[in-house]
Amino acid sequence: MFAAFQLGLQGVQAQLCDSLPQMGGQCIALYADKPIYDIPGIALCTGRELAARLQQQIQPFHPVFHGHTQVAQLLPHGDGRWRVQLQSIDGPQARWLLARTVVVTAGVGAFVPKQLRLPGLEAWLGSQVFYHPAFDDAWLEPILARQAAPRIVINGGDDAAVEAVLAAADHASLQAAQLVLMHRRDQFNAPDALLQRLAQLRASGRVEVVIGMPQAIEAAERLQGIGYVDADGADQRLACDQLWVFQGLSPKLGPLLDWNLALEKKQLQVATDSFQTSAVGIYAAGDIVSYPGKRKLILTGFYEATMAAMAAVEYLRGEKLLLEYTTTSKRLHARLGVSHPD
Amino acid sequence: MFAAFQLGLQGVQAQLCDSLPQMGGQCIALYADKPIYDIPGIALCTGRELAARLQQQIQPFHPVFHGHTQVAQLLPHGDGRWRVQLQSIDGPQARWLLARTVVVTAGVGAFVPKQLRLPGLEAWLGSQVFYHPAFDDAWLEPILARQAAPRIVINGGDDAAVEAVLAAADHASLQAAQLVLMHRRDQFNAPDALLQRLAQLRASGRVEVVIGMPQAIEAAERLQGIGYVDADGADQRLACDQLWVFQGLSPKLGPLLDWNLALEKKQLQVATDSFQTSAVGIYAAGDIVSYPGKRKLILTGFYEATMAAMAAVEYLRGEKLLLEYTTTSKRLHARLGVSHPD
Ligand SMILES: Cc1cc2nc3c(=O)[nH]c(=O)nc-3n(C[C@H](O)[C@H](O)[C@H](O)COP(=O)(O)OP(=O)(O)OC[C@H]3O[C@@H](n4cnc5c(N)ncnc54)[C@H](O)[C@@H]3O)c2cc1C
Ligand SMILES: Cc1cc2nc3c(=O)[nH]c(=O)nc-3n(C[C@H](O)[C@H](O)[C@H](O)COP(=O)(O)OP(=O)(O)OC[C@H]3O[C@@H](n4cnc5c(N)ncnc54)[C@H](O)[C@@H]3O)c2cc1C
Repeated sequence: MFAAFQLGLQGVQAQLCDSLPQMGGQCIALYADKPIYDIPGIALCTGRELAARLQQQIQPFHPVFHGHTQVAQLLPHGDGRWRVQLQSIDGPQARWLLARTVVVTAGVGAFVPKQLRLPGLEAWLGSQVFYHPAFDDAWLEPILARQAAPRIVINGGDDAAVEAVLAAADHASLQAAQLVLMHRRDQFNAPDALLQRLAQLRASGRVEVVIGMPQAIEAAERLQGIGYVDADGADQRLACDQLWVFQGLSPKLGPLLDWNLALEKKQLQVATDSFQTSAVGIYAAGDIVSYPGKRKLILTGFYEATMAAMAAVEYLRGEKLLLEYTTTSKRLHARLGVSHPD
Repeated sequence: MFAAFQLGLQGVQAQLCDSLPQMGGQCIALYADKPIYDIPGIALCTGRELAARLQQQIQPFHPVFHGHTQVAQLLPHGDGRWRVQLQSIDGPQARWLLARTVVVTAGVGAFVPKQLRLPGLEAWLGSQVFYHPAFDDAWLEPILARQAAPRIVINGGDDAAVEAVLAAADHASLQAAQLVLMHRRDQFNAPDALLQRLAQLRASGRVEVVIGMPQAIEAAERLQGIGYVDADGADQRLACDQLWVFQGLSPKLGPLLDWNLALEKKQLQVATDSFQTSAVGIYAAGDIVSYPGKRKLILTGFYEATMAAMAAVEYLRGEKLLLEYTTTSKRLHARLGVSHPD
């Protein structure tokens, strides 16, 4: 995000891509509600608050965000540009972007949903089966177009699963839908407020909780049901039109290892004067990079992202960047959309 | 300030020293009321606000601040430690500190007051003559002990001079003092609100404004008066018990050039994995350092200060630092004076 900010200040629009539905990396995926004390000038904020602050800061540059999308391939296009393959987490769809420069800020890897390993499940991915879906109207629309009152099974026991079932229960377009929360035991790991709300929805019959472990799917023209083992070890069956799986996220370096960039202990090697990787036009910053003395901190990433962005701009322009200050530069003020008297 | 924060997190108490009366460097000395847009996570703050935020952030570590004090000499003590000479801006007093490590964050140089070059003036420095004094009770006490109702001449035409005369007019202990503001022309360079207040004080007779350029001092046992040339070029004389000079601040690298540290274009050369200078135990960060790719930004200083502080701690302990996160480390929480449930 801060690389996009520095690029924006220089008049270069960035497209951001993350396998997570939102921007924020580890801060939102691993410790959204924990306190951070060592951001310079911010005595205290949570991971979520830091992400929100950065989001606000990059607003003037209207960056395009491809959420829930993994960068799968990175290939030279032959003319100095790079082909970037964007792969949707929800299904097999892939798109390609052509970019003159890429800043890789892959951290400890792409946060991708843990998979439910049931034979034949993949066939329904993106239509009836979704992993950690980003819960919004654009995503719901095609689902509800096919079936106005689906029976939705939400599988998982953590915050994300509980949040999803609460959001579904409250969602205007899902009032006719039947909601089932399936987890291997009757204990959910989420903040008290969410658990209380869940208890209310169970009591009122709006949400049914089923204890069990999915074992198989039943499908013909479409996915129709799930076979599972209940708490007593007995085989059971549950009707299901939509299966939303929240088994947690785990970071996978995955694709990056195949991009032909010089690595050291699975981290990208960079020159510290430019944060360029071993490939011309490809820069990197944050936890993914390695150089002598590297300390894996958020602040480190901010600095490296700034260095990478400025070097990328010099590469794009073919000339040295004249350092301008945001306090005094009319050009930067115009890009930020602010004006100040002299 | 951020180096002191990172040292504090590691349990090392820092002593800060600046020729300015407050902490904040260029941000407060050159653009206190201008907006800064490129601090990560802070969409907008002024120079003064940034300094205040950092001040708040380092509070838990109670750093000792030597304001209005220049580091004049830095000498090896022979046992691996360093002797640091602190020279007061207000007079000839000097003190020495013994330090195992020093982090030099000298920026574009020490902001020191421009001198009034009048023969014999130095003799009264620190007793009757002060340059840009830090206006506080501890400083006023010995002055008022000698003379309860001094005639104070404040010399200057910028914000600092106007602020000083307003502060003096309002100060409880200075109600009996006579206040004269002396400037070479009847035009003052300060925000409108201050100028309006000044006009009121002139109208009420609380402050007298004298137009003139100081030329000489009159002194016997003590400083008694100032000779000056008025707007018509005529010689004049003004009684004076206290002369407070606000002719502006300008940065002077000065002493640092004699510390036997490797320089390149008057900047300190550092190793980018540790931000150590050419001397063992002396680290550096911020605008004063030079290395390939260096970009002179506040963020850069935050990063370098962190790198320098952590390397200094490793040097002090003789072992590698295990990176701990402020979100999760009980040890860091204890040092920050906070506690969080698991
Ligand atoms: C529990 C915990 C507490 C911490 N506390 C602190 C602290 O107090 N202070 C501090 O300074 N640091 C702290 N850190 C470290 C800090 O979180 C990391 O240094 C920081 O998040 C690194 O940022 P990044 O942008 O480099 O990578 P990340 O935050 O890991 O973000 C990388 C993003 O890239 C995405 N991604 C990766 N590969 C792909 C791909 N191929 N396609 C699409 N998307 C991809 C990932 O999904 C991820 O969202 C903490 C870390 C943890 C785990
Ligand atoms: C008008 C202007 C606008 C700017 N706007 C921005 C911006 O928008 N964004 C950005 O990132 N950067 C900006 N900058 C740059 C930024 O201010 C500097 O990069 C930053 O202040 C450097 O911090 P520092 O701590 O290294 O040095 P400084 O801020 O220069 O502080 C060094 C301090 O050390 C003291 N000192 C030096 N030597 C001695 C000594 N021997 N004894 C005692 N004290 C000593 C000085 O008095 C000073 O207070 C701007 C600069 C200017 C001039």
